[in-house]
Amino acid sequence: MPQPIRTAISGIAGYAGAELARILLAHPQAAPPLLLGRIADEQGPTPLEHLHPNLARKQPLPLIEPFSWQLLAERKIEVVFLALPHEQSHQQAPEYLAHNIKVIDLSGAWRLQNPTNAAVYNLPPNPLQTEAIYGSPELHREKIRTAKLIANPGCYSTSIILALAPLLRAGLVDLAPGIICDSKSGISGAGKTPSPKTHFMYAADNLSAYSVFGHRHTGELLEQLNLLDSQIQFTPHLLPIPRGILSTIYVKLLDPTTPAAVEKHIMDFYASSPLVRVRPAGTLPDIHATVHTSFCDIGFQLAPDGKRLVLVSTLDNLLKGAASQAVQNMNLMYGFKEEEGLA
Amino acid sequence: MPQPIRTAISGIAGYAGAELARILLAHPQAAPPLLLGRIADEQGPTPLEHLHPNLARKQPLPLIEPFSWQLLAERKIEVVFLALPHEQSHQQAPEYLAHNIKVIDLSGAWRLQNPTNAAVYNLPPNPLQTEAIYGSPELHREKIRTAKLIANPGCYSTSIILALAPLLRAGLVDLAPGIICDSKSGISGAGKTPSPKTHFMYAADNLSAYSVFGHRHTGELLEQLNLLDSQIQFTPHLLPIPRGILSTIYVKLLDPTTPAAVEKHIMDFYASSPLVRVRPAGTLPDIHATVHTSFCDIGFQLAPDGKRLVLVSTLDNLLKGAASQAVQNMNLMYGFKEEEGLA
Amino acid sequence: MPQPIRTAISGIAGYAGAELARILLAHPQAAPPLLLGRIADEQGPTPLEHLHPNLARKQPLPLIEPFSWQLLAERKIEVVFLALPHEQSHQQAPEYLAHNIKVIDLSGAWRLQNPTNAAVYNLPPNPLQTEAIYGSPELHREKIRTAKLIANPGCYSTSIILALAPLLRAGLVDLAPGIICDSKSGISGAGKTPSPKTHFMYAADNLSAYSVFGHRHTGELLEQLNLLDSQIQFTPHLLPIPRGILSTIYVKLLDPTTPAAVEKHIMDFYASSPLVRVRPAGTLPDIHATVHTSFCDIGFQLAPDGKRLVLVSTLDNLLKGAASQAVQNMNLMYGFKEEEGLA
Amino acid sequence: MPQPIRTAISGIAGYAGAELARILLAHPQAAPPLLLGRIADEQGPTPLEHLHPNLARKQPLPLIEPFSWQLLAERKIEVVFLALPHEQSHQQAPEYLAHNIKVIDLSGAWRLQNPTNAAVYNLPPNPLQTEAIYGSPELHREKIRTAKLIANPGCYSTSIILALAPLLRAGLVDLAPGIICDSKSGISGAGKTPSPKTHFMYAADNLSAYSVFGHRHTGELLEQLNLLDSQIQFTPHLLPIPRGILSTIYVKLLDPTTPAAVEKHIMDFYASSPLVRVRPAGTLPDIHATVHTSFCDIGFQLAPDGKRLVLVSTLDNLLKGAASQAVQNMNLMYGFKEEEGLA
Repeated sequence: MPQPIRTAISGIAGYAGAELARILLAHPQAAPPLLLGRIADEQGPTPLEHLHPNLARKQPLPLIEPFSWQLLAERKIEVVFLALPHEQSHQQAPEYLAHNIKVIDLSGAWRLQNPTNAAVYNLPPNPLQTEAIYGSPELHREKIRTAKLIANPGCYSTSIILALAPLLRAGLVDLAPGIICDSKSGISGAGKTPSPKTHFMYAADNLSAYSVFGHRHTGELLEQLNLLDSQIQFTPHLLPIPRGILSTIYVKLLDPTTPAAVEKHIMDFYASSPLVRVRPAGTLPDIHATVHTSFCDIGFQLAPDGKRLVLVSTLDNLLKGAASQAVQNMNLMYGFKEEEGLA
Repeated sequence: MPQPIRTAISGIAGYAGAELARILLAHPQAAPPLLLGRIADEQGPTPLEHLHPNLARKQPLPLIEPFSWQLLAERKIEVVFLALPHEQSHQQAPEYLAHNIKVIDLSGAWRLQNPTNAAVYNLPPNPLQTEAIYGSPELHREKIRTAKLIANPGCYSTSIILALAPLLRAGLVDLAPGIICDSKSGISGAGKTPSPKTHFMYAADNLSAYSVFGHRHTGELLEQLNLLDSQIQFTPHLLPIPRGILSTIYVKLLDPTTPAAVEKHIMDFYASSPLVRVRPAGTLPDIHATVHTSFCDIGFQLAPDGKRLVLVSTLDNLLKGAASQAVQNMNLMYGFKEEEGLA
Repeated sequence: MPQPIRTAISGIAGYAGAELARILLAHPQAAPPLLLGRIADEQGPTPLEHLHPNLARKQPLPLIEPFSWQLLAERKIEVVFLALPHEQSHQQAPEYLAHNIKVIDLSGAWRLQNPTNAAVYNLPPNPLQTEAIYGSPELHREKIRTAKLIANPGCYSTSIILALAPLLRAGLVDLAPGIICDSKSGISGAGKTPSPKTHFMYAADNLSAYSVFGHRHTGELLEQLNLLDSQIQFTPHLLPIPRGILSTIYVKLLDPTTPAAVEKHIMDFYASSPLVRVRPAGTLPDIHATVHTSFCDIGFQLAPDGKRLVLVSTLDNLLKGAASQAVQNMNLMYGFKEEEGLA
Repeated sequence: MPQPIRTAISGIAGYAGAELARILLAHPQAAPPLLLGRIADEQGPTPLEHLHPNLARKQPLPLIEPFSWQLLAERKIEVVFLALPHEQSHQQAPEYLAHNIKVIDLSGAWRLQNPTNAAVYNLPPNPLQTEAIYGSPELHREKIRTAKLIANPGCYSTSIILALAPLLRAGLVDLAPGIICDSKSGISGAGKTPSPKTHFMYAADNLSAYSVFGHRHTGELLEQLNLLDSQIQFTPHLLPIPRGILSTIYVKLLDPTTPAAVEKHIMDFYASSPLVRVRPAGTLPDIHATVHTSFCDIGFQLAPDGKRLVLVSTLDNLLKGAASQAVQNMNLMYGFKEEEGLA
């Protein structure tokens, strides 16, 4: 049996960090991850279960430890997962690379190549920007295998890009009327910091649209799907549920077709993608189908005219939309089965 | 003080029936309503609080009573609210009219004039069909005043029609690319009968799209907004909340305009409508804003190009989407203030 | 018709303040209340709907205004509702009284007479303490009529005291084994300030016990029910719902009795209390029955041994547990019907 | 490596059946389970994902198959999990045993030895009744290893018995005043059949007590904790969440003690139990801590008097309260690590 891979997670306090820890602690090919977090920088080594009681076991878990380059060297860390605000990721990723540690970054810091799009993150330019690989395994599997810096996709972006890529790449979509992406996400997408919008009294029994014409994930749609801003419109909504994203996507096809043809087209596209499940024509996934799983599910309904198409995709924003996709990228980078530790 | 109006509610067991009872029991211009329900036909007079404990007071409430024409005559009922399945409403409405009792029907039985649209309800033709008035007070205020048979609008339809009417009636919308209506409704919209879809375990923490390209409310959109089927697309979703609808509506304007102009246009349209609240440009209503109220709230965001417009409307599906709108119609029919008993 | 009463609400930003505004704006015997809030002290007069959009109407609402004694004098304010942290209430109540304005305080500042109990609030002694009347209309109706300073009861306390008072006052309860009060409250009880415990991700799909053997409402139970600390035990829990309290209360009776006798005893006790509904023996209220109402519901189940009794009481923590009870007190103070504006 | 164990699951449609399938499909020591279900008896072999879409993978899952003894023989089934109504379990368990197949029954059919207690299930007497082993691994580990018929404990019972056993077995509890168990369970405990009580509109935002003095799990408490009916009182409540149980348990100790002593006592009791986590004194588990895990968590708070004790235990009713505990029993029966496939 090969040597288990040695990983670190930086930013263990948040929801994505906790999911990364949960996945990597059980990953058959990985040693228990080195856990790094601000709490340990401030208070010294801290049991993981102090932050995440549901991860506790009877046997002691790894401690969260204060960051030091010496510690990373001692542990022979090969790859780090950054689950940090994008400003910190942008600063730290080059340092890790300089220490010969590969980086899988879960923030938005390295996702955008086009400076106009990237401007939404207010980050200084960095030559590394163009070397980062957008970590969508279904679209960039080969490049990911040899990548040193992975920009793990946004949660909304993943749900939209995976639904649209098969049709757009085949040139089947009429771009003139514009594609509408109406997405709905659970509250974990808004992060762990308490705020008026994440207060139970605001979020529960409610639904709200936000960042209309202005959400940061839009740039990923443009770049990955090769579209102009006028060709796609994305509206996120805040759902009163802990986790899960459902995107309802409206497209027009250039030529009338049949449900069977659309189904075959999408199924073929994802035939060798273990973490995308395509539903039979006319069958739509709901959020339940993917929550607490690493899958993205895609279904569709074609209008009787054979041209108007509604795609519905769902995923768990913390898993396929964040931590699972990050580990999927790691699996590719280290030659493991793509879904290792994720099914 | 004038004689209080004498009303009856038929179909008291469901959610809309309960809301009608609650509103009419407190209506300043109405006598306590006569309550009719299958439970009383089967078991004899039944206290209302047996079905709806939250309506109980210390003083006895009206009983639910077995239906008889003699009873309606004795009580001198002037108007009946039908909160029944559409098949029953279709059968009973003509009988009430023949007994000189006006009808406000909350089902879909009488909403559609075009036989093709109406076919979704599988009802036999009835000459009354063309005499029914679509009970959208904001659109048909004058006709409602003299109506004998009101077809109270669908809950989804109300949220969409009120958002779109100001722009469509003014001819400002580019119909070529099609209007997209992505609507989300709380579970009460699915009715009181237990089913796999209304089971807490299915509905909670979930979201699902349904009836894509096939929901019965579509016909109301076509007829009331004067659109072709190819010009508007409506997708309902089931939200994990008890009540409330939010519709996200995507339109393109024919000519570029400013947020201020759109705001003024919609505000002017509803200037004398007491139960529609228009938000300032760029401010979107959420579901909380209208739940347990009789209002429909409308907000919008205009793209920087001045042409792509996202409208968001919200309402309580059991109130402005059902019971409150029904009482609003009654108020118009009897010359009361439009919002009497509703604010 | 008599002159409408002139009221003020201080502390309009929180949940109880909003409910007070909603109730008083519609109260038949009250002029629109003067609204006072920190936001106006900081920013000048502010529309109420900026803080509470669901209260908006088409006609302008009263503004929230900056506090000044001159303003209160001009408006001839007779009574003020304090919906403030207890430290502020403790400081402000005497000042209002000195200006000849009656006070109904919704905080815990004035509820406790016994200095040991009151110590949990860390407030300096004040001679007014012993003049405050505990605003439980069902227990102290006569004293409330002439009170100048009302200490509105705690939400948990109300649900427990109303359930236990009939049996305890009649000396029917065996105090030796101790009374157990297991209470569960919706999140609004935890206040509007965002915190880790009120974050949707913590609160949703969860349940937790807290402040075991140490909740501040315990003192009210001891004083109002005339019990020793060893005779009653109160454990609050945080429910994943916006509003509502259910208390499950375990008592042993001194002598075996029948369900009918218990039912008659409690019903007689509340015969002239318009806002307490007593359920028939063996019928238990749930939270739905009282949410968005001003009622406290009480039910019970007696063991076959005729001695072990489980009482269940429910109420809306923001209404009968706060704002409605406060207005009920005002109604008594000014000679209105006790339930005026509350049913 | 030893031969993987060959299991069957009968009753795959419900929530516990689905969790059993999920666990056994990933169990390192088990072959993929044979799935048996009424749907296959009626319609022939049926893909598992038709009933449980969230279990789907890209590779085909085992089909649900029609029951036949021949099929069980061909597959060499060694042990069957019965996730059926108790009447069916009572009938089928002896037949499986007669075919030399061990039985782990998740219903209440075989849990109770005392005929008075067992009478609540209305089942005819069966000599096997006294041979069934109550499948609480923490209490009956040794007997389970050699058992042929396991009565898997009730979900509520598990949460209460595990919390109380350490103190009761050591004779530390004063039984005179009686033990109070106030339990709260998510809706999955009410089963998958749609009913008015499991309708989202009833369950959501609600809480209700039920079966006071009459819940079937009471007998398990009496028998496993060796108590008289007058010594323990159990009240279940329906929580508005999908899964999870929290029990708040009130006991009095015979002699005053310290938190540290109570903590040590409970921790020692469960020192070699991998699926019970004991919290430090004064730290209480919430439902989140155990949902989607196989753990039961126990915490407590001791009153300043050193005698009144509140225990809080939580677990996932579908896992440690059902499917996980069943697999834990299987692990013991076949000599695997107790927590194999469960952590």
